[in-house]
Amino acid sequence: MKFSRKYTLSEIAALANADFEGPANFEVTGINEIHMVEKGDITFVDHPKYYDKALNSAATTIIINKRVDCPAGKTLLFCDAPFDVYNNLVKHFVKFVPASQKISPNSKIGNSTVIQPGVFVGENVIIGENCLIHPQVTIYDNTIIGNDVIIHAGTVIGSDAFYYKKKPAGYDKMISCGRVIIENQVEIGALCTIDKGVSGDTVIGHGSKLDNQVHIGHDTVIGKNCLFAAQVGVAGVVTIEDDVILWGQVGVQKDLTIGKGAVILGKSGVSKSLAGGKVYFGAPVEEARDKWKELALIRKLPSIIEELRSNP
Amino acid sequence: MKFSRKYTLSEIAALANADFEGPANFEVTGINEIHMVEKGDITFVDHPKYYDKALNSAATTIIINKRVDCPAGKTLLFCDAPFDVYNNLVKHFVKFVPASQKISPNSKIGNSTVIQPGVFVGENVIIGENCLIHPQVTIYDNTIIGNDVIIHAGTVIGSDAFYYKKKPAGYDKMISCGRVIIENQVEIGALCTIDKGVSGDTVIGHGSKLDNQVHIGHDTVIGKNCLFAAQVGVAGVVTIEDDVILWGQVGVQKDLTIGKGAVILGKSGVSKSLAGGKVYFGAPVEEARDKWKELALIRKLPSIIEELRSNP
Amino acid sequence: MKFSRKYTLSEIAALANADFEGPANFEVTGINEIHMVEKGDITFVDHPKYYDKALNSAATTIIINKRVDCPAGKTLLFCDAPFDVYNNLVKHFVKFVPASQKISPNSKIGNSTVIQPGVFVGENVIIGENCLIHPQVTIYDNTIIGNDVIIHAGTVIGSDAFYYKKKPAGYDKMISCGRVIIENQVEIGALCTIDKGVSGDTVIGHGSKLDNQVHIGHDTVIGKNCLFAAQVGVAGVVTIEDDVILWGQVGVQKDLTIGKGAVILGKSGVSKSLAGGKVYFGAPVEEARDKWKELALIRKLPSIIEELRSNP
Repeated sequence: MKFSRKYTLSEIAALANADFEGPANFEVTGINEIHMVEKGDITFVDHPKYYDKALNSAATTIIINKRVDCPAGKTLLFCDAPFDVYNNLVKHFVKFVPASQKISPNSKIGNSTVIQPGVFVGENVIIGENCLIHPQVTIYDNTIIGNDVIIHAGTVIGSDAFYYKKKPAGYDKMISCGRVIIENQVEIGALCTIDKGVSGDTVIGHGSKLDNQVHIGHDTVIGKNCLFAAQVGVAGVVTIEDDVILWGQVGVQKDLTIGKGAVILGKSGVSKSLAGGKVYFGAPVEEARDKWKELALIRKLPSIIEELRSNP
Repeated sequence: MKFSRKYTLSEIAALANADFEGPANFEVTGINEIHMVEKGDITFVDHPKYYDKALNSAATTIIINKRVDCPAGKTLLFCDAPFDVYNNLVKHFVKFVPASQKISPNSKIGNSTVIQPGVFVGENVIIGENCLIHPQVTIYDNTIIGNDVIIHAGTVIGSDAFYYKKKPAGYDKMISCGRVIIENQVEIGALCTIDKGVSGDTVIGHGSKLDNQVHIGHDTVIGKNCLFAAQVGVAGVVTIEDDVILWGQVGVQKDLTIGKGAVILGKSGVSKSLAGGKVYFGAPVEEARDKWKELALIRKLPSIIEELRSNP
Repeated sequence: MKFSRKYTLSEIAALANADFEGPANFEVTGINEIHMVEKGDITFVDHPKYYDKALNSAATTIIINKRVDCPAGKTLLFCDAPFDVYNNLVKHFVKFVPASQKISPNSKIGNSTVIQPGVFVGENVIIGENCLIHPQVTIYDNTIIGNDVIIHAGTVIGSDAFYYKKKPAGYDKMISCGRVIIENQVEIGALCTIDKGVSGDTVIGHGSKLDNQVHIGHDTVIGKNCLFAAQVGVAGVVTIEDDVILWGQVGVQKDLTIGKGAVILGKSGVSKSLAGGKVYFGAPVEEARDKWKELALIRKLPSIIEELRSNP
């Protein structure tokens, strides 16, 4: 996420209660977890295994738990618990304010948009024109919805990322500060869940259609004119290109890509990135024609074994 | 769906802004998509591949994009975009009116029925006697619910069919004008979704029980005393006969039939019609005893291969 | 469940409209279905196959449909329909009262807990301190929630067990009188469902984290610091020990145990109890390394068969 104004390194260090290395007036413009960093961003690292990755990333201010040398053109914030400091900065910049009413007056709702009864709209939400939001929908803070969007009853847009850090005493929650962006002409079925990005955006691309009970994880980006049938689940940080079709109850693991125009048949489990333009099936998924051959062979196995046993 | 009164062909042609062939006073009594047509119905066809099917169907008024000969006893409406004209007629006859309150005064709620807080009830809904509707349930317009029905929290009844027409620029939504009918003594768990029919009815039969997070697609008809465990998903236009049991997370593809008393074990994927009275398992589904044999054989394969290799 | 005060056998017999055998002043302190019985409890049995189990259980008052001999130290209630009498007693002791407002004044909400708009809180609910309950959540009667708990939008806590008795005319509902207990530092995602116990408690252990659209069945007990990804479904009466990880769309059948620290990979179907400390995969589930070997062997089958056919 980007801050609403520029900060200096010394301001950030004061907020973080951390020592800093670098020019006190060094510009800091945002905060992101390591996969989403850009110039001007703060990020954090707390395990020696990832020091190099963080120090060499696009981020220009790194919260770190060791007094390493500062790379050229970058700045450091030193502390014992970088994860906690990162979380505290996020909480400072994206304050959660309990809602005092069902639809925040800070949110903007476009002309000809219908909001049915029982809908919750958080802070700083933007909803475009000519949308139809059915009853009991929940739209968390900072969500952006385009024009001509339909969202069916009970759907939840912008819930937190499922993202925890294991510590000896249990799991620590990574505070999500990203958003959900829903582009024009998207339709989302009833009782779907679309998580916000951890620090970036979860995107549902122009014209894509989701059936009921679909789950989309944090920071996942879905292209244009995709079709997801009921009870599909897509984990976090997945890229799904344009015109992809996922049939019912398909599951997609995190951190992978499904290429343009791929079709995944119902109940498949996608555990690796898939090239576009092909049809897939199975859990774990394979090209459908290979899977069909495999299933046919298994059905013929008893007679094949008999043949082999009787042919000495 | 049937209209609330009879129309003449010339009235419909005027609404549709289309030329017509046939008697101006020809009776038109309803509108349905091709799978649900009856005498008196309007339907549409826009692809030469399906002209014969539409012209020979039970529908007596066909919206068509070619000046074909009119079959005896039928009438035609000519236009360039039959899908759009069909959609516009549906929108005319089943107007969506934004709700001004949580429970429409046009809806009827029977004696001894309890509606918990936060429930939404749309236009022209009928709910029978002695029902219990738990909090946050959404009941869309035109739903019909019998007596002694329990619906748990957050469930959505009557959301739109997931039904789109692919056009070069993306997907066009087919406007649903059907209903959901829930018969007596049905219980529906929390956070289920039951879509309305495209132009006919989705039916949950007498005494059937659905666990939580079950999805039922448009125009699907479920018999009496069925039992569906949690997270079952049934696609559109499926027929499930009486006494069928679907265990957890079973998925059923569209346009098929499951016979009376069939039992489908958990996680199965039903991709073809199934005879009643048997137990099934697997994705794709087989008779369970065949599937168990197959799984046992696969487990023994390493030793069978060793045996075959060592028996020259 | 335990009663709020002690009852005598004759009081219970009067409520049940049943003959009794045993001392009129025999102490009765609760009612439970057969899996959860303790001393002082009423339970019921109506099938000769289960008479011995019920009579020898920890329950000290048994509702039974045959005039059997009374075991020492126990008491009996005779009637024709023990299931119905059990249900009627449960309804007497755990009365359902239609809610007159969204948050019952009989419920207790701790300091610093935020309840967002649109939340429903039933009777006798206890919510601890520093919790965050997002919009449209439904919390049924008698639920107990600890401190530092987060529940995301639309989630349903305490819906009825999916538990019916088959009778010739259809299914009879077993009335649930148990509770849901959510311990400290639990986070539950959006649109999850957690059913109450039939007569005991469904428990989500300290520090466990559930992603969106997770379903947990009645009387299931989940240990500390478990992690369940999106669309996981766990049936009733399951024991999941501490530190168990279930990845996306995993299904777990009823009445089994998953040992401490087990990891179940995405889309697996757990149909038997599993030892802790291992990684599992498949539907039906196996140890993951066995499953990988099996999948690799199936992929090599065509060439193995060719080899065997050509090696005379």
